[in-house]
Amino acid sequence: VNERPRLDAAVLAALRAVAGEAHVIDDPELAASYETDWTRRFSGRASVVVRPGSTAEVAAVLSVCHDAGIPVVPQGGNTGLVGASVPRRGEVVLGLTRLDGLGDIDTVSAQVTAGAGVTIARLQDHATAAGLLYPVDLASRESATVGGTIATNAGGIRVLRYGPTRARLVGIEAVLADGSIVSRMGGLTKDNSGYELAQLFAGSEGTLAIVTAARLQLVRATPHRATALLGVADTEAALAILQRIRHSVTDLDAIEAFYHDGVEMVCRHTSATPPFATPPGCYLLVECAGREDPSERLVNALAECPEVIESAFATDRAQQQQLWRYREAHTESINAEGIPHKLDVTLPLTTLAEFEATVRERVAAAVPGARPILFGHLGDGNLHVNILGPAPDDDRATDVVLRLVASLGGSISAEHGIGIAKAPWLHLTRSEADIAAMRAIKRALDPGGILNPGVIFGHDA
Amino acid sequence: VNERPRLDAAVLAALRAVAGEAHVIDDPELAASYETDWTRRFSGRASVVVRPGSTAEVAAVLSVCHDAGIPVVPQGGNTGLVGASVPRRGEVVLGLTRLDGLGDIDTVSAQVTAGAGVTIARLQDHATAAGLLYPVDLASRESATVGGTIATNAGGIRVLRYGPTRARLVGIEAVLADGSIVSRMGGLTKDNSGYELAQLFAGSEGTLAIVTAARLQLVRATPHRATALLGVADTEAALAILQRIRHSVTDLDAIEAFYHDGVEMVCRHTSATPPFATPPGCYLLVECAGREDPSERLVNALAECPEVIESAFATDRAQQQQLWRYREAHTESINAEGIPHKLDVTLPLTTLAEFEATVRERVAAAVPGARPILFGHLGDGNLHVNILGPAPDDDRATDVVLRLVASLGGSISAEHGIGIAKAPWLHLTRSEADIAAMRAIKRALDPGGILNPGVIFGHDA
Repeated sequence: VNERPRLDAAVLAALRAVAGEAHVIDDPELAASYETDWTRRFSGRASVVVRPGSTAEVAAVLSVCHDAGIPVVPQGGNTGLVGASVPRRGEVVLGLTRLDGLGDIDTVSAQVTAGAGVTIARLQDHATAAGLLYPVDLASRESATVGGTIATNAGGIRVLRYGPTRARLVGIEAVLADGSIVSRMGGLTKDNSGYELAQLFAGSEGTLAIVTAARLQLVRATPHRATALLGVADTEAALAILQRIRHSVTDLDAIEAFYHDGVEMVCRHTSATPPFATPPGCYLLVECAGREDPSERLVNALAECPEVIESAFATDRAQQQQLWRYREAHTESINAEGIPHKLDVTLPLTTLAEFEATVRERVAAAVPGARPILFGHLGDGNLHVNILGPAPDDDRATDVVLRLVASLGGSISAEHGIGIAKAPWLHLTRSEADIAAMRAIKRALDPGGILNPGVIFGHDA
Repeated sequence: VNERPRLDAAVLAALRAVAGEAHVIDDPELAASYETDWTRRFSGRASVVVRPGSTAEVAAVLSVCHDAGIPVVPQGGNTGLVGASVPRRGEVVLGLTRLDGLGDIDTVSAQVTAGAGVTIARLQDHATAAGLLYPVDLASRESATVGGTIATNAGGIRVLRYGPTRARLVGIEAVLADGSIVSRMGGLTKDNSGYELAQLFAGSEGTLAIVTAARLQLVRATPHRATALLGVADTEAALAILQRIRHSVTDLDAIEAFYHDGVEMVCRHTSATPPFATPPGCYLLVECAGREDPSERLVNALAECPEVIESAFATDRAQQQQLWRYREAHTESINAEGIPHKLDVTLPLTTLAEFEATVRERVAAAVPGARPILFGHLGDGNLHVNILGPAPDDDRATDVVLRLVASLGGSISAEHGIGIAKAPWLHLTRSEADIAAMRAIKRALDPGGILNPGVIFGHDA
């Protein structure tokens, strides 16, 4: 499995003719960064890495691979967390970061056209410079790309207010398995003329088409921001606050939850010190953003929440970033202690507290010594369950957690996708009929099964 | 074509066994209302009308039709405008209004589960009673159903603020061509586990699945409303106002445009009198709605618009409804003068004024004596072009208008769908590759082609 598989010489020559010698990579050192993902849990050998420089080149590469029956793994910033962006069985890796064209902002429609390889941070800066906002935001913003975030329908910290990536999609340009290009980039926000392929491709994890560009809807800028870090007794109390303020505070941007074990880990691996003298049962990070300063509204709203035990407010950017560090440094701090199993789940808000109260002991019972760290987007019922301890191929804890989620009416993937990592559990929350319909669509658009094989459906699909 | 086609006796018996004698209708008088749509332009004979009372019955009906290879036309409120809800060639009409279950409002998630047959008006009232809002709103609200508005991804007057029906869809229950039921009704707002069938089915006009129920996201109520009717010089001026206020007024709910020929017609057929002594070149209806009274903001914002020549403000419900009548009574007034060709198009805001200024003479040149009446949702670039004069099967004016739209970068259907009416022009704004991908999906989910045949792709598909 670790041997680099060889491509047929004619195929290799055809790929080089399309993308240019420099962009067809089989040197092990150069290929390495494309073969292991950010989690370090997933890695494999590519037969070759191809980095096309345009949609036409993507189409030509797909055409070559299609005719030769060679499977392809599309890759953006390689920040995915479910093993869908690295090769498994000697596939061709299609590196898409050279598709980095970024159009002028159309201020009339508040839209922009971005290539699949544009990073989220660059897109955000571009929008901000025009007085607008690209509201999809996530910790991996410096590497994650437009194409990757569409393929995974990425969520992040502002879904509560703005929805996930699919809510930004006005149009898409994509290459199908046979190399044909579908495109609907006119920027029309109302266009009911046939099936909405953009919405089908969003979240399909590179199994139906390769996204090469998108027309994206921006929103008004919200330059004024107020942030509060709260200490509360437990998840139940956090949910009570969520319910109260989501109805009273209009500018609510984010409500994130985490716990003391995570904060301790963050303090161990960064320069942070614990925010409160007495560790609370649950931390809540609440942020509002608006065209006017929302501080007073936020302070007033929280003053009416008896659940708040401790609180720290921040109105300037530096203080705000300090509060956010407790939340955002979770990932790197966990990574510093080992390679976690990263499970990203949603629960109905009605069963979320029960899940949080139960999951740790279930994991401990399944894998003695395993350490689950929980954090996530409370406003969306979305928790990230990171489990340190089990070996990368030990799925016992995963199995226990995902079955618990399903039994409580949740989903085994909130925002990361199914990928390779969760394919064996898809049946827990999608019915046989659902999966049959999905497979039929997959076969229709990719009859040879060359697009990201194994992802969503598993390798035996 | 006008003869009622006969179903095989065994099939008829099977349908009766599923839905009950009373709900399998072949009496011509009882069937008539299912065979002609609201436009009166489209009508045909059904072999039989079946009115299942549950999702299981829909599945059983589909199963019978699937096995016998009998095509099915799904029908909700029969308020569609593109001929997709009435039989064309002796299909079975599947009347879905008995699926009228409406769940309690979940105030924690601000969601509700509604059967496909629930009317939009009933859903709106149900949400309002719980202090929430179902923001999809359209003139046909008393008849249009949840299922029909999902199948067409209905837009309406508040798309500007809340998006079309697809933006409301948290989950869907639907029956596939073979009678299998797909369902994802857990109400999770974040759920990236496989393909998002709900978003694929939204706007697919009954060609991929029969929607039987949906989980819908409600929004905060906006009990305070301010409405202004403006007279401006022309469409250019109206667009200038749109640009200015869409960035300065946060509570903007609707911006509708219409013209003097339409207002004259409304005054002829209703008790309304012209709103302004001197008819302006373009009328603009602007509405804001919020949790606090938006009147002052609206008045102030419009005071900064030099384009405003005439204005009338309304803050109480009765006055507001009077202003809205000028806009909403367009449809009934046009119908009172004949059977119009109803074309619903979007233009980029940059070419909309050019379209409005050009379309009348183009239509007149194509069909001497034809009378085009324009009105629509200016904020979305969406105009409804109603053409009186041409016979129902005379497509010359349609052809001219849709080609003009395509040449200006617009779409031939903004919110009504393609249906039967626009299928011959689909290629104007969807590419060959787009249509091929759509056909592949259609074949995958409905290999026998029994779901709403002829719709979107035409009868030769």
